Amino acid sequence: MIRVAEIFGPTIQGEGVLIGQPTVFVRTGGCDYRCSWCDSLHAVDTEFRHQWLPMETGAIWNRIEELSGARPLTVSLSGGNPAIQPFGPLIRHGQEKGYRFALETQGSVSKDWFGDLDTLVLSPKPPSSGMATDWAAFDACLDAAGQGPQTVMKIVIFDDADYAFARDAAARYPHLPVFLQPGNHLVPGGDQEDAPVDHDALTARLLWLVDKVTADGWFAARVLPQLHVILWGNKRGV
Amino acid sequence: MIRVAEIFGPTIQGEGVLIGQPTVFVRTGGCDYRCSWCDSLHAVDTEFRHQWLPMETGAIWNRIEELSGARPLTVSLSGGNPAIQPFGPLIRHGQEKGYRFALETQGSVSKDWFGDLDTLVLSPKPPSSGMATDWAAFDACLDAAGQGPQTVMKIVIFDDADYAFARDAAARYPHLPVFLQPGNHLVPGGDQEDAPVDHDALTARLLWLVDKVTADGWFAARVLPQLHVILWGNKRGV
Repeated sequence: MIRVAEIFGPTIQGEGVLIGQPTVFVRTGGCDYRCSWCDSLHAVDTEFRHQWLPMETGAIWNRIEELSGARPLTVSLSGGNPAIQPFGPLIRHGQEKGYRFALETQGSVSKDWFGDLDTLVLSPKPPSSGMATDWAAFDACLDAAGQGPQTVMKIVIFDDADYAFARDAAARYPHLPVFLQPGNHLVPGGDQEDAPVDHDALTARLLWLVDKVTADGWFAARVLPQLHVILWGNKRGV
Repeated sequence: MIRVAEIFGPTIQGEGVLIGQPTVFVRTGGCDYRCSWCDSLHAVDTEFRHQWLPMETGAIWNRIEELSGARPLTVSLSGGNPAIQPFGPLIRHGQEKGYRFALETQGSVSKDWFGDLDTLVLSPKPPSSGMATDWAAFDACLDAAGQGPQTVMKIVIFDDADYAFARDAAARYPHLPVFLQPGNHLVPGGDQEDAPVDHDALTARLLWLVDKVTADGWFAARVLPQLHVILWGNKRGV
């Protein structure tokens, strides 16, 4: 059984290497982290546990097929930390039907089925999160993935300390493409779901990060906003 | 000699397959098209011809090295139509120094040096542009590129007719990744360079396109905004 917080789409992937690509999201409930600025607390905080529906692989698959009109697309496995769920059978079944699977995880828990993914996004959490990265666990995720998926790093940046962390992480894994993303200041809390989008603040944070990266000559990094926040703010299910 | 309208950067690539990637732009002057909504008239309209500086390859290279601090990065060749300029020697010289080269063109003029590019973005112009695509010329661009660069299509969409054009173009070249981009309504004319960014209008246009693509089940397309317009509006040199 997989604990599902929400399944929605098709919408576009708002972040990172697959930005702009139509996708259906499967967001699981439960996380071994508790980042200070988590933007998905409804899938993390056990206070919301009653909203997480235990679902069989077959039921999840049926919902994905229904939402996508049975047309193959990329399914984004998100959370919480989706790595703590048993996704292997869903991935194998979906791929037989022509679907592709992308997983985003902090890299704290590795699974054999990482090798079956099409895309693996590892997002180590910077100091502002309040979390500490276990690099041995992170390495185990890379080992589990092997040469199977396209593997990239995505790092959220709120401040200079986060930026220094990102540089260190990138230096540690020079073969991994790096995507940087300004932190979403609209969180925490689900109570801001309907707040209007503060475009000027989002733009200012993106501009700050672009200036930092280009001034620093860090030309291997890619700097991207969260498109879904630009489009929908913190609204869920889009 | 290459006719240069502007060289600037490093900034980030705001569009398409390289979105978010630090880059130096070399924008050339002169174009065989005159799109109704051209957002770079200062590099197209012969009225601005006196601003286009004829530069030798060596002088352009020196400026690229200066702007990038001699650290290799991706150089974006833009216009106007940069395909009408003799870029072969610059590309080969820069690549020897570890730089990469991306070219964006409508696909109306092909050159042997397309095969040396790292990225070729072909952007056929939809009906709203007022231009008609010569598909034989477009095919010649693909032939010239061969298996050399990563080749993708990018299509600007203003309305339903443009969307239908994009679907047809994608069906014609099923092997080419397709990036869709809502049209920039802040143009035409350079006189709006300092106008404030109308985020609500930009967001509405992006949302319209996302909804259209997802409702249509066109899951191979990627939908992206123009990041530089979000960040800087129509300001030049960023």
